[in-house]
Amino acid sequence: MDLLRIADIDNAYKNIKSYIIKTPLVTNEAINSLLNARVYFKMENLQHTGSFKIRGATHKISLLSEKQKEKGVIAYSSGNHAQAVASAAKENNLDATIVMPKNAPKIKLENTKNFGAKVILYDSLTKNREKIGNAIASREDRTLIKPYDDLDIIAGQGTVGKEITEQLNIENVIPDIYLCCCGGGGLIAGSSFYLKKNFPKIINYSVEPKEFNDTQLSLLNNKIISNQESSRSICDALLATHPGELTFEINKYTLSGGLTVSDIEVKKTIKQIAEFLKVMVEPGGAVAAAALLSKKIDVKNKIVVVMLSGGNIDYEFFSEIVTKKYE
Amino acid sequence: MDLLRIADIDNAYKNIKSYIIKTPLVTNEAINSLLNARVYFKMENLQHTGSFKIRGATHKISLLSEKQKEKGVIAYSSGNHAQAVASAAKENNLDATIVMPKNAPKIKLENTKNFGAKVILYDSLTKNREKIGNAIASREDRTLIKPYDDLDIIAGQGTVGKEITEQLNIENVIPDIYLCCCGGGGLIAGSSFYLKKNFPKIINYSVEPKEFNDTQLSLLNNKIISNQESSRSICDALLATHPGELTFEINKYTLSGGLTVSDIEVKKTIKQIAEFLKVMVEPGGAVAAAALLSKKIDVKNKIVVVMLSGGNIDYEFFSEIVTKKYE
Repeated sequence: MDLLRIADIDNAYKNIKSYIIKTPLVTNEAINSLLNARVYFKMENLQHTGSFKIRGATHKISLLSEKQKEKGVIAYSSGNHAQAVASAAKENNLDATIVMPKNAPKIKLENTKNFGAKVILYDSLTKNREKIGNAIASREDRTLIKPYDDLDIIAGQGTVGKEITEQLNIENVIPDIYLCCCGGGGLIAGSSFYLKKNFPKIINYSVEPKEFNDTQLSLLNNKIISNQESSRSICDALLATHPGELTFEINKYTLSGGLTVSDIEVKKTIKQIAEFLKVMVEPGGAVAAAALLSKKIDVKNKIVVVMLSGGNIDYEFFSEIVTKKYE
Repeated sequence: MDLLRIADIDNAYKNIKSYIIKTPLVTNEAINSLLNARVYFKMENLQHTGSFKIRGATHKISLLSEKQKEKGVIAYSSGNHAQAVASAAKENNLDATIVMPKNAPKIKLENTKNFGAKVILYDSLTKNREKIGNAIASREDRTLIKPYDDLDIIAGQGTVGKEITEQLNIENVIPDIYLCCCGGGGLIAGSSFYLKKNFPKIINYSVEPKEFNDTQLSLLNNKIISNQESSRSICDALLATHPGELTFEINKYTLSGGLTVSDIEVKKTIKQIAEFLKVMVEPGGAVAAAALLSKKIDVKNKIVVVMLSGGNIDYEFFSEIVTKKYE
């Protein structure tokens, strides 16, 4: 696997570090004793724009030519990549158009507009976002900022792996397991690659919603497999139809396997994370923690790093989740 | 003012640092550009037991004699000190009795019990918690762990000022203003003292609920003044009737003045903190941020450190607050 190098991620980090937060890596005694393990949560929900996506978007936009910058950018996204591209475009005084599904969380739609982007809504059940995005890109000569299947985006998201490595090194901790959400696979490709290079014995797992387990199935079959069209999940950030070609090529090399979680396990986890860690995570940002807390793997006496990738959840939905009793 | 020395806080830190989280100090571009300032939030809501109180309790308990440890401890508290003493007692295998008001937040009552403490409830409108606590302490020969008016507790809470100092030093930042909540005044006494010694030009303000502005009034009159008995506030953590003798002696020296906020300003702030920072703060933990966001002082072009002191809020109340529209 020679698509990606550590130096690509190191360079991306140099490029973006003044624009992003070095987010906290937090351990929690209550959770540790509940699981008999030592767990470190990487809080990318506290990142600018409320998710890790600002890393890749900032890096990619910084690499555009002056001419490309003049013409502006376009992106399609259910919301976190949308906000990230809109924010990074604003930071660089670029014009941005974002294609978003009508039923995206309100908070994501509003924030994207607030960053000054033009938002084009589409019906995700009947229309294809790639087609809409590509059509506008070619008509208006805009640069398409892909959500994950782009090596610059992967290197940008991978910078979170670099931060985790540095934060663990300070504490002289060598992790055994890394659990990370997986939609199109950009975040996990970059970050699991960086961790594996630095901690060769680490076991990396992707975590997906039950009905969107395309990466799990693709890993098992060693080829790209798509989700059923009828699939549903509350994890709006993780609804990519199939792994990216580049991300899968990397993930085949870095991952030991794929785990899945149900919507109810995700909801229960959002409540537990609020209770123990006092932070808000969105459904897609909670799947890795859900795999941990629902005991999908044995973590006894292990050191586990868990990605909390985003926090953009509507208040009404969050409130409904945390005020409900589970089991 | 020679009650407290920097070395007391440094020693307390050595004593407790393996038991506490070095909580994140986070800045947020959206809030910075909203206020035209650079704001650093110290997230003690992410601390073990959900508040800074574990610092002082851990330090105090570590200093007890073997005989005192055998007899056990007692504390009175609306909840955060309660959880902290219960947790630190459990960590040290001590027996703990905690006197708590009947109407304390459910989350605080439950967590205190979960740490294995014996909880004695009283009616805060008709009974005096100090009297109940002192009576049990003398009857059972238990050591009373005071909530704030104790130099070891103040030094313990002051360790958060040491962390802030170190975190700012890494970024080469010199703060102009420090905003910190104030109930009995232990946290602000220790932390503002440490900050003032390290950043002599810093301006420290206490922030209190409108009707519990005893520290503000005491500072203005240069003597200890109590709140009206009829005072009410949603900030359950900040309902001390008057400043402590020791805390006031220190705060007279370190503080430039006192600010106050209304319940509605606190609620609006809890929602804004959830929106921008993706974390849960409790009412008492939000007052310093409320003073900032409600523009009680001019912060334009200033570097401001804001304490988020705790996150123990009932889900129902949090949900009610964040789903409401303000203005």
